[in-house]
Amino acid sequence: MLFDGWAADVQAAAHVFVRALEPAVEVSGVDGHHLERVRRVRAGERVTASDGAGNWRLYEVSEAANARIALVAVRAVMHEPVLTPPLAVAFALTKREKPEVVVQKLTELGVDRILPVVGSRSVVQWDERKSAAALARWDRVAREAAMQCRRSRLPTIADVVPLSALAGTSGLIVADRGASESPTGVPLVGPDGWVVLVGPEGGFSPEELIGLDEAGPVARLAVGPHVLRAETAAIAAASVLAAQRTVGDA
Amino acid sequence: MLFDGWAADVQAAAHVFVRALEPAVEVSGVDGHHLERVRRVRAGERVTASDGAGNWRLYEVSEAANARIALVAVRAVMHEPVLTPPLAVAFALTKREKPEVVVQKLTELGVDRILPVVGSRSVVQWDERKSAAALARWDRVAREAAMQCRRSRLPTIADVVPLSALAGTSGLIVADRGASESPTGVPLVGPDGWVVLVGPEGGFSPEELIGLDEAGPVARLAVGPHVLRAETAAIAAASVLAAQRTVGDA
Repeated sequence: MLFDGWAADVQAAAHVFVRALEPAVEVSGVDGHHLERVRRVRAGERVTASDGAGNWRLYEVSEAANARIALVAVRAVMHEPVLTPPLAVAFALTKREKPEVVVQKLTELGVDRILPVVGSRSVVQWDERKSAAALARWDRVAREAAMQCRRSRLPTIADVVPLSALAGTSGLIVADRGASESPTGVPLVGPDGWVVLVGPEGGFSPEELIGLDEAGPVARLAVGPHVLRAETAAIAAASVLAAQRTVGDA
Repeated sequence: MLFDGWAADVQAAAHVFVRALEPAVEVSGVDGHHLERVRRVRAGERVTASDGAGNWRLYEVSEAANARIALVAVRAVMHEPVLTPPLAVAFALTKREKPEVVVQKLTELGVDRILPVVGSRSVVQWDERKSAAALARWDRVAREAAMQCRRSRLPTIADVVPLSALAGTSGLIVADRGASESPTGVPLVGPDGWVVLVGPEGGFSPEELIGLDEAGPVARLAVGPHVLRAETAAIAAASVLAAQRTVGDA
């Protein structure tokens, strides 16, 4: 099987992130509360823990009480294979859309890097404080989604940058309804893999598209002929590319 | 361009469903309220109208007042091309998931038929009254999504049936994380096109999978190695297949 030996997801009652995959670890705080109080994980059950950097390990719960669980390793540390090419999704922030849903779904789909951008048609204003709060929130959403989907390598979420900063990125693919290229063709892979850019529902401004095209070759990707919500477009583009990835070397 | 000449979406202020594409039509009721009061469509603006069966027409607003708009045709009736192969998505209803989000996204992605099913692990109980209310709600969600994404052929939403009823369906594809087949391979197309089945988050029961496999050839489709939420799996599988469709003859 293609993805055999990934995470002990079927046997394990839960997947949790810890600082280091020591032979014995304790989970307290928010995660301890979630596992012991909400999920009601009990002594004797199995749980996988991960360091968020691709390593994971199978543990047995030795104690569960007072919103804490103690874990004892039952196997050696395992390594979640890297998928290739690397996949980044850049999406334009808008007032109407909910980036949290996008971050959650992209994490489940295995996207490596999430790049929030603001376009010239974005109504959203980003100051530094607001940006820091949003990034902290999205990191939390990604972490929770990774626990739920048994992912051991957390996606990185980049600082908010203007869309024009992506001009010249190699491997750039624009999710575009009017795409004329074969929808099943595999786009060019840059040194950083695929970087797919999804615009706001109103679309990119003509100047933005010209700016991107002038800076270097840009592939296009269409998922159906209809006007997708920005949120749907991000999930759809990530799905199409994720389904074309294979297990890499690292 | 692949999808050129679909709907006058860029120029038109809105897309609305009407009974027949007469030279002059009036939109009142919920849609009239939405267009005149919420979207504030005004006389002189252009709107596309559709009969929901694939036909659409460009109109000009001649009057807009009191939650009603009057439309006068400015072009002949157009026909939205059919995409091939036909695409159906069957998804298992669960207590936790929100079928509304799935119906909305599948409509945007151009899915032709939506088949809600209950599996043996579904916690949901369906009686006839509840089922009728849910179907009416999902039809409304699909219609609103079609207006938003400028789609002129409404998807059909089938009655809720047990998952076992799908056994033997030709063109059946099971969205399965453990899929061993090439993720980019194009699955077999049955006489009714592709019918992709997405299970609940807990997965199918072994008996259900055996039942499906025994009844005939079943393709598998994986989108990434992680455990997708049922909602994400439905959208991801539909996206992968939607991106492989082309314009048909009809």
